[in-house]
Amino acid sequence: MTQHPTPSTQHPAPTKIVQCVPNFSEGRRVGVVRSIVEAAASAGPAKVVDYSYDPDHNRSVITVVGEPDAVKAAVLAGAAKAVDLIDMNEHKGEHPRVGAVDVVPVVPVLGCTMAECVSLSYEIGKELAEKLEIPVYFYEQSANMSHRTNLADIRRGGYEALKLSGLTGDWEPDLGPRKPHPTAGATVVGARGPLIAYNINLKTDDVSVARKIARKIRMVRDEGKGLTGVKALGVHLKSRCLAQVSTNITQPHAASIYEVFRFVEDEARKLGVQVLESEIIGALHQEAIIEALCEAIKLPRLHESRVLDSWLRK
Amino acid sequence: MTQHPTPSTQHPAPTKIVQCVPNFSEGRRVGVVRSIVEAAASAGPAKVVDYSYDPDHNRSVITVVGEPDAVKAAVLAGAAKAVDLIDMNEHKGEHPRVGAVDVVPVVPVLGCTMAECVSLSYEIGKELAEKLEIPVYFYEQSANMSHRTNLADIRRGGYEALKLSGLTGDWEPDLGPRKPHPTAGATVVGARGPLIAYNINLKTDDVSVARKIARKIRMVRDEGKGLTGVKALGVHLKSRCLAQVSTNITQPHAASIYEVFRFVEDEARKLGVQVLESEIIGALHQEAIIEALCEAIKLPRLHESRVLDSWLRK
Repeated sequence: MTQHPTPSTQHPAPTKIVQCVPNFSEGRRVGVVRSIVEAAASAGPAKVVDYSYDPDHNRSVITVVGEPDAVKAAVLAGAAKAVDLIDMNEHKGEHPRVGAVDVVPVVPVLGCTMAECVSLSYEIGKELAEKLEIPVYFYEQSANMSHRTNLADIRRGGYEALKLSGLTGDWEPDLGPRKPHPTAGATVVGARGPLIAYNINLKTDDVSVARKIARKIRMVRDEGKGLTGVKALGVHLKSRCLAQVSTNITQPHAASIYEVFRFVEDEARKLGVQVLESEIIGALHQEAIIEALCEAIKLPRLHESRVLDSWLRK
Repeated sequence: MTQHPTPSTQHPAPTKIVQCVPNFSEGRRVGVVRSIVEAAASAGPAKVVDYSYDPDHNRSVITVVGEPDAVKAAVLAGAAKAVDLIDMNEHKGEHPRVGAVDVVPVVPVLGCTMAECVSLSYEIGKELAEKLEIPVYFYEQSANMSHRTNLADIRRGGYEALKLSGLTGDWEPDLGPRKPHPTAGATVVGARGPLIAYNINLKTDDVSVARKIARKIRMVRDEGKGLTGVKALGVHLKSRCLAQVSTNITQPHAASIYEVFRFVEDEARKLGVQVLESEIIGALHQEAIIEALCEAIKLPRLHESRVLDSWLRK
């Protein structure tokens, strides 16, 4: 007779890990960025695995990873600090934005469904609305209205349009006061799949080159010829005298980081411009790194089990 | 007064993890390769994280990872099976070799010094010599004689030269019988640092192209102009009508996989030949993958803490 192991009656609760990547409208005053990071990091057990800021975007991005409640606490602590220290009426920057705590994406990482991340985003949104008195819009998987799925549609016109809108009609928030927070504006919160924020800096001060390439990326994507799910903008990095193609790779399995790099490099070359360097904002999965390398070196496959560090995890 | 935690009197023994990558002289009879893998995998708790075989090299490589004693047991079980099933008198192949269990490299992975890997290699060598009656040469960090540091020097002339040598003079083994094993020849065992076995296949049947590129790699390396620590051979993959540049990257921090790929691609292009694909044999560290990707996409840095999977490990 076959022996089966006796099932244990006590199952430990499976660990749920989420990632939250709040974007704050401050990328120039380094002390302010550090205060926000410090507030998030010291709120509890969630870990700030990365933060970065850019003076031209005038924006910072913090990556918080941990169990849902811990991540919520960290993000709310960071948000409270940002509301204290940032005044949108004095904010200028290249990147579209509507508030001090501009956007709060919640992303499943391990043992966590999208539905659970949607719930977490609603909890975070509720606290932002009630405790910090910020009007909140839910986007992506958390959107309650179809015209709020796409972040770009919500942010169109930016903080300036938000103030003029009276927060009525399309601008009526999902939660919170019916007027912009006097200094922090509004916040967009939502659950979404993993996304890679990937920027490529060109060896030129001419932003029109970056804009042409970004347009080409969107065209190729919309015609279904490649670069599926890649969003792109041309941005001027005035402080560095550079033009940047700023992208979001929203379907990392469909278009790899290397494919985006190579496309931009080729298009830039046609315009007589070279790539200076690229940057990844925030955290990403090992799989995305492996897939990109495989394309770069024409490697048909490299299973994660062959990465010694993956094995040490077990 | 500052409080210090009371140090625990019981320290759990730190985990020591090693990698062993035995190379066997069989890459055609898939059943034989599988039997060797099966023997290694079922010997105990060590894990076979990868195996691969090539009919033209007529060679297979198995990657075993685990604690030192477990790895020793797995490798010896695989070696015993190889000695049973492989007859070097009938072996033909592109790759230099002296025995059925051709070379047994032992590599530190975690919490383990090179000296401990040297000891483990001596233990493995002793068992191969005493139980399987194979003459054993110690190489690399385990070499007892300076002319045995470099594997290529030991294997020069291959199994055929070994048989003619009478195992005297430079051919006298460190351990075991003073004559080649009648079917399994000899074995080279030693501890070494991590190495990436990396092959690039060219879209040509002309092996002279691969040999020219391999020579260029060695020249550039020896002149200190780049590709530090990269060993290279041109090999003919007869069964696939392809030429291959077969490399060992012995200092992964000095030359990345991408650098080697790019060098070969550029040199091949000068000779009017394209790269078809590349392959990595065995396991590697996440860091080597990240470093290669950073070069491919001109990314100045990407700290491992930003790889979500690294963080989940903790």
